[in-house]
Amino acid sequence: MRATVYHGSRDMRIDQVPDPRISAPTDVIARITHAGICGSDLWSYRGIYQRKQGERMGHEWMGIVEEVGAEVRTIKKGDRVISPFLISDGTCEFCREGLPSSCIHGERWGGSNNGGQAEAIRVPYADGTLVVIPKSVEDDEQLLKAIFPLTDVMATGHHAAVTAKVRAGSTVAVIGDGAVGLCGVLAAKRLRAERIFLIGHQEARLNLGRAFGATDIITARDERAVQEVREQTHGGAEAVLECVGILEAMNMAIHMTRPGRSVSCVGFAHMNQAPDLTRRLFQNITITGGVAPARAYLPELLQDVIAGTLDPSPVLDMTVDLAGVPAGYAAMDKRTTIKVLVHP
Amino acid sequence: MRATVYHGSRDMRIDQVPDPRISAPTDVIARITHAGICGSDLWSYRGIYQRKQGERMGHEWMGIVEEVGAEVRTIKKGDRVISPFLISDGTCEFCREGLPSSCIHGERWGGSNNGGQAEAIRVPYADGTLVVIPKSVEDDEQLLKAIFPLTDVMATGHHAAVTAKVRAGSTVAVIGDGAVGLCGVLAAKRLRAERIFLIGHQEARLNLGRAFGATDIITARDERAVQEVREQTHGGAEAVLECVGILEAMNMAIHMTRPGRSVSCVGFAHMNQAPDLTRRLFQNITITGGVAPARAYLPELLQDVIAGTLDPSPVLDMTVDLAGVPAGYAAMDKRTTIKVLVHP
Repeated sequence: MRATVYHGSRDMRIDQVPDPRISAPTDVIARITHAGICGSDLWSYRGIYQRKQGERMGHEWMGIVEEVGAEVRTIKKGDRVISPFLISDGTCEFCREGLPSSCIHGERWGGSNNGGQAEAIRVPYADGTLVVIPKSVEDDEQLLKAIFPLTDVMATGHHAAVTAKVRAGSTVAVIGDGAVGLCGVLAAKRLRAERIFLIGHQEARLNLGRAFGATDIITARDERAVQEVREQTHGGAEAVLECVGILEAMNMAIHMTRPGRSVSCVGFAHMNQAPDLTRRLFQNITITGGVAPARAYLPELLQDVIAGTLDPSPVLDMTVDLAGVPAGYAAMDKRTTIKVLVHP
Repeated sequence: MRATVYHGSRDMRIDQVPDPRISAPTDVIARITHAGICGSDLWSYRGIYQRKQGERMGHEWMGIVEEVGAEVRTIKKGDRVISPFLISDGTCEFCREGLPSSCIHGERWGGSNNGGQAEAIRVPYADGTLVVIPKSVEDDEQLLKAIFPLTDVMATGHHAAVTAKVRAGSTVAVIGDGAVGLCGVLAAKRLRAERIFLIGHQEARLNLGRAFGATDIITARDERAVQEVREQTHGGAEAVLECVGILEAMNMAIHMTRPGRSVSCVGFAHMNQAPDLTRRLFQNITITGGVAPARAYLPELLQDVIAGTLDPSPVLDMTVDLAGVPAGYAAMDKRTTIKVLVHP
């Protein structure tokens, strides 16, 4: 089969690789119908996150099950499935607590596992990892496109909103107009936030943010953005979703949070400097969030997408086939596209 | 009157100063009956926190009201009162939300205000700041000594426990065997934690911790302490109270917290290095806590002390008069005493 393989910085190739095979009785094999390129894949593409040459790429995918291991109980051949961006066994204490991102048998896609940007994939712990999409969805391509962001970015935006304690009537600030930030706006709106500030710099993305429910757009940077949010909220937003993942964004977030409230940081950051812990301490600001336990959120979010009350599909503003994946990486790297959907 | 005055690093003196006078109609003047030397006063004593020569010292005190400003409504001459370690107006939005530590008119004791280590004190925003101790307590010195730590260390230990979400049955780790850490143990016990690890190094303090409710004492340092807690809890404590306030303690705390749970950091730290935000992110560990809103907790904790179900008085293991204050600082600096009670 063909799969996206890392050959080095800015060198993703579509290579011929061995077909995936069941290697544990809890595995299934799926043919991939939808895959994504994630903002965090760019860390590899840009050479900031070091990978080994030959590693497979892609942790966002949906597909149709083609082969089922002997001990798989809930997934059947022919099922249309969605995978979260992490593998989890579904049975350990953390999975049972709703934190499959800390599963004691947790694994990541890619590396020694298959990746999602490919024709097919071997799925470890299939019962724990996968969620079956109801037959009612059939081949409704628009609905499938709306479901797809639940693999990662929509689950992550939701996690940011939930952990920052967004609730009905909240005043929320979302830092970052990438796919996660935009999904954070959607998530805050879904949780009935009253006022949603979106801080970003790209007009098209900000317009999408407004369509998703942002009530206030802030294009000022750094300290001026902080001042604007604090002035307009009379002291800071009640929940801040930091969806960029760099130190400057984290400091902005802490400074625009209302005393006693929470900042959720979900960005994949490599930080060598300290965020502002002085304001955190003196104003009792909680730093929360983290890698989203997407598997735990999938059933609830899937229900809303199918019911038509949640539609993050507009973040997928470029579609390619497998051969188009390298071009998709390049487009996301240049920020000419928000997020790429792949139809292998 | 006489008051403790900062003259420089390791140079606290008892000086003759002007008697306090009402300067705003919301002030009262109190004669001080009990004062304390706080671990955070040592930051000044050691010259780490820079003060101006001539500043008054002390932010923990109780006393008897001697004079009342024209607009004071709830405090009467002759009332026995306890003050939290911060001044707050009691009426602003943050005070109403239970976060008087972020009061928009908030002030600190000392500096341009009077300090508690003195014969008398001017109290700004007396209605907001002070809590009247019921007449039933009368002059029960042992009970007053048990009430006194509510000014700061017991409120701070309680804040650490509450914000780290200690509840009935919790497994808790408390880092630090100083007065705040010991009060953290008491607070966790009061909230019905089932297992309480206390991490410290001084035998006498650890014995007191055991008397306060610690079930497990850990004297190992750094990574070995982390390993011990993680092994014994099968993955980390459900709530970690970081009561030291230095980077190493914060990193230990993050590493011994169970995925998905909270570390409360209440120590007065000056940090120039980043705590370990990678584990925070990947294991969804929340960093919470801060400067305790002591005023908000006072009524509830006072009730328990008066009822005899809470007694933090053993942390006060040295008593001096005003002339003995410099010796008290020296003893706390050398760690030969946990905490000094002053009877001016």
